[in-house]
Amino acid sequence: MQGPLLAASRRIRKTPFSRRVQEADAKVYTVYNHMLLPSVFESVEEDCKHLKNHVQLWDVSCERQVEIKGPDAARLTQMLTPRDLSKMNAGVCFYTPMVDETGGMLNDPVTLKLAEDRYWVSVADSDLLFWIKGLAYGLHLEVDVDEPDVSPLAIQGPKADELVARVFGESTRSIRFFRFAMVEFEGKELVLARSGYSKQGGFELYVDGTELGEPIWDALMSAGEDLNVRAGCPNLIERIEGQLLSYGSDMTRNNTPHECGLGKFCQTQDAFGCVGRDALLRVAVEGPVRQIRSIAIDGEPVPAIDELWPIIAGGKQVGTVSSAVYSPDYRTNVAIGMVRMTHWDDGTRVHVDTPHGIRSATVWETPFFNQGKAA
Amino acid sequence: MQGPLLAASRRIRKTPFSRRVQEADAKVYTVYNHMLLPSVFESVEEDCKHLKNHVQLWDVSCERQVEIKGPDAARLTQMLTPRDLSKMNAGVCFYTPMVDETGGMLNDPVTLKLAEDRYWVSVADSDLLFWIKGLAYGLHLEVDVDEPDVSPLAIQGPKADELVARVFGESTRSIRFFRFAMVEFEGKELVLARSGYSKQGGFELYVDGTELGEPIWDALMSAGEDLNVRAGCPNLIERIEGQLLSYGSDMTRNNTPHECGLGKFCQTQDAFGCVGRDALLRVAVEGPVRQIRSIAIDGEPVPAIDELWPIIAGGKQVGTVSSAVYSPDYRTNVAIGMVRMTHWDDGTRVHVDTPHGIRSATVWETPFFNQGKAA
Repeated sequence: MQGPLLAASRRIRKTPFSRRVQEADAKVYTVYNHMLLPSVFESVEEDCKHLKNHVQLWDVSCERQVEIKGPDAARLTQMLTPRDLSKMNAGVCFYTPMVDETGGMLNDPVTLKLAEDRYWVSVADSDLLFWIKGLAYGLHLEVDVDEPDVSPLAIQGPKADELVARVFGESTRSIRFFRFAMVEFEGKELVLARSGYSKQGGFELYVDGTELGEPIWDALMSAGEDLNVRAGCPNLIERIEGQLLSYGSDMTRNNTPHECGLGKFCQTQDAFGCVGRDALLRVAVEGPVRQIRSIAIDGEPVPAIDELWPIIAGGKQVGTVSSAVYSPDYRTNVAIGMVRMTHWDDGTRVHVDTPHGIRSATVWETPFFNQGKAA
Repeated sequence: MQGPLLAASRRIRKTPFSRRVQEADAKVYTVYNHMLLPSVFESVEEDCKHLKNHVQLWDVSCERQVEIKGPDAARLTQMLTPRDLSKMNAGVCFYTPMVDETGGMLNDPVTLKLAEDRYWVSVADSDLLFWIKGLAYGLHLEVDVDEPDVSPLAIQGPKADELVARVFGESTRSIRFFRFAMVEFEGKELVLARSGYSKQGGFELYVDGTELGEPIWDALMSAGEDLNVRAGCPNLIERIEGQLLSYGSDMTRNNTPHECGLGKFCQTQDAFGCVGRDALLRVAVEGPVRQIRSIAIDGEPVPAIDELWPIIAGGKQVGTVSSAVYSPDYRTNVAIGMVRMTHWDDGTRVHVDTPHGIRSATVWETPFFNQGKAA
């Protein structure tokens, strides 16, 4: 994970938790939605091990919210995604692939329905706000579209339930997966959702404004001392093992949701109003010709990936690897890539052209996490 | 300019020149439009001195292009900006503040008119593509809106004319400021504009695709050896001295072009079709209540800025500093900030609340560069 130094500027925004993250000695950062996102604290391996055994606080303020509010809010939100939102209730989170008129992915946010006429779209790394504002203006919709100053703090790991119950009350234990409830902190009501960018369980707390940032951080840290709580961040190893995709890395505007393996989140036929509906109807029926797969790359740990690595079979390119890292638990390099139909079946042997030479590799239909073959 | 390490990922895109930039030992980077942008080579001071005396190659691939093409291209482009484009000819570049329906700045790109029905919008750090695509879809316009794989390479500094003439021909000397011409390299036609993010003169070459990146870089480096050409990048000192604004740092969606001192690029009355016209008409006449100013901050060199610093006068906040750095030539800390009308007159004394304590400071209406008071 060695990289160059990152320059300071106001353009790369700090978060309500930045000071605490710095004090916790974040070693490496990335930039996500024009904002700082820590990438490594102790080491990617140690961070991963800790995440799987304890509980971590993640400054994911960079998951900025786009608030859509007003009489046309439901209509506009449905325009953004091929997922059918017609039966979505308030208090529910939906993972929502969002596409343009060609069916190309613009973002893969979690959408929260706060009320019949009010949604938060918790975005991955693209200015989805601009697309939504453009649509709203062009279509003369009666909505306000804006970025409220709301900064998610993720509490992730097997001990997250216990920690959150201690600080926000026992009732938080009954919040179901991808549901949210309101909790109180210093007299302020905050959204607490059972969600997060890991497979270890946990919550995301949507912190309103900046003042509460450090008090909430400190309250969780102090309540979780005996739970071995510490600062963490989305972990490269854990997210690849779980095949959690990264917009901009594993998929771009060139890909349909179906190529990204997100077909289960698309009810294109029923998603009336989705701007990508026409473009996606055929692919929804026939399926894509390439698709996201988990890939095991043999040999020594691979270097950090900073551009696509070709997947080769029979002398031809049959795909690309977009994320890769060595997994101590699976004792192999775990990777995510886009593989052509001819080579995407479970167990297919291929080669990957890495900066450290050609490596043999195996394509898996199921994420490593679900294979449960950890050493 | 010390900062944390930047994590590698495919999400932070490499450029056609990345390998050369790395070989030239770029020490610090930033992320701009999801792409790597070098920030420092030798040191900010040494880079600045070199830029003012010689010629540098800048990898500004991160100035991504939004191509707007088709029968409604001119109409859509005019919708984006309060600058009157009705008399814009092909072959011309316009600096174009771009605003939303409230008059808030979305970007401050240079727009190139390639043909009557084809424009490139060379964007600052926001996904302006999404806004333009949203408008085009919502308004059923007959246009294609896309990001072509075009990567600008800037050639900046007093010896840029000589270097460019050697590689692309003597006729390039006659390209006027903010005009462009087509030049040839290895049989491919490329756009060469007299423009760039410095006050030292020079060009921006719009390199199509990736294959030509290194050959062009190498040709310029080898032709300019006796001109002392080297790798460089937008320089923090030089751009603040020249009051060249940075979108995201010095201005955001909260600001109108008039607040940003960009009123001279707005002909709001004549910019029929601009989506922000209604919102801006009043401010265009009455003027803003706060505006961008150059500011000299007294005392020792200030630390790197990573969030707004309050400007204080008479016990009240009267503005914010958004960019600041020590300038050896002006023997003071040069800064850019937004100052309220009550304190924006030339020579007004104020205080700035920096992380190194309260400093006295002077507000200047004219950029340092135009004051010509360099030591």
